[in-house]
Amino acid sequence: MSTDTLAPALSVDDATADLLFREARTTREFTDAEVTDEQLAAVYDLVKWGPTAMNTLPLRVLAVRSPEARERLVAHMADGNKERVSTAPLSLVVAYDPAFHEHLDTLMPHLPGMRDNLHAVPAVREDMGRTNGLLQAGYLVVGLRAAGLAAGPMNGMDHAAVDAEFFAENGWRSLLVINVGVAAGTGTTYPRAPRLAAEQAVTTV
Amino acid sequence: MSTDTLAPALSVDDATADLLFREARTTREFTDAEVTDEQLAAVYDLVKWGPTAMNTLPLRVLAVRSPEARERLVAHMADGNKERVSTAPLSLVVAYDPAFHEHLDTLMPHLPGMRDNLHAVPAVREDMGRTNGLLQAGYLVVGLRAAGLAAGPMNGMDHAAVDAEFFAENGWRSLLVINVGVAAGTGTTYPRAPRLAAEQAVTTV
Repeated sequence: MSTDTLAPALSVDDATADLLFREARTTREFTDAEVTDEQLAAVYDLVKWGPTAMNTLPLRVLAVRSPEARERLVAHMADGNKERVSTAPLSLVVAYDPAFHEHLDTLMPHLPGMRDNLHAVPAVREDMGRTNGLLQAGYLVVGLRAAGLAAGPMNGMDHAAVDAEFFAENGWRSLLVINVGVAAGTGTTYPRAPRLAAEQAVTTV
Repeated sequence: MSTDTLAPALSVDDATADLLFREARTTREFTDAEVTDEQLAAVYDLVKWGPTAMNTLPLRVLAVRSPEARERLVAHMADGNKERVSTAPLSLVVAYDPAFHEHLDTLMPHLPGMRDNLHAVPAVREDMGRTNGLLQAGYLVVGLRAAGLAAGPMNGMDHAAVDAEFFAENGWRSLLVINVGVAAGTGTTYPRAPRLAAEQAVTTV
């Protein structure tokens, strides 16, 4: 564990804090262990409980598993990310659905008019979908780790091309790609980069 | 705990899964317990380890503590959120710093030119700051819960007015507000809203 945390202020034990944050690394090197659809469902069933505005839950995940699909994804990744996607056990295209409002009669039953109101304002839905999808992407990174999986998130990709390739029919929009698997060792040969101190990022008025 | 999770697939115990996700609620009702700056620093020192693109760490947090500052924030919240901010033990304005690149010589020492490259492209920094700030906001919600605190995130606010009110000098941009404290009971009288099933949000190709 790191030395600058105030462990007594936490309600989770050190092993959990290490697993979810302090020792977890952006992983580039994985074992051959497979990531099953059942594992992904368990992760989703955990992180779906995280809060989103009006319970909109716009996060969508495309698990790119087949060699053919993987090749289609690699083609649209930035050059520096192609090999990582080629060799990861599984890559997730993390996206949001701008048509999230279609589920609101179920997800937000005490606001019965919201579905129709949002139907009329696609730009608002784009903004809400992106904002809350990214919040949920943060929950997802933690949830993968809570399932003993390592995550290698990356944003270097041609988003429009990925969306045209995979989401032409359902209209989802890509946010990032996360390589997923079991880490080999620490999962990376990079030394751990420093972080900002709390007093650089948190101020009080 | 909920009944539709596959607990054996998780590496954290049920109590942790419940604390961070399954039993945690968007909280509107808090006890009188104070949230200290030390607790906030401990939360930041946990979640700062979460991954961001190029270790940019754009998240910034303004803790609104004094009655005078709280009044200034309440004025710019949506009507439905004013009372919640007035009565919460502490409210955080979660933001990002578009000038995050100024720290990259420290945060990303093996990419020495990145600071200057990003200085020249403010629109790219806005996009990176917002994307990675929201990812970190997701980590922050989990981190608050890991410190035994309850979170009530909300997005209904006049973002431009909040930024003008609090961030005219440092240029930060608000993403959301999170009310923080110790939950009174379950922290809410709302029944728990349903979630999408994994098969509605996760697909495989």
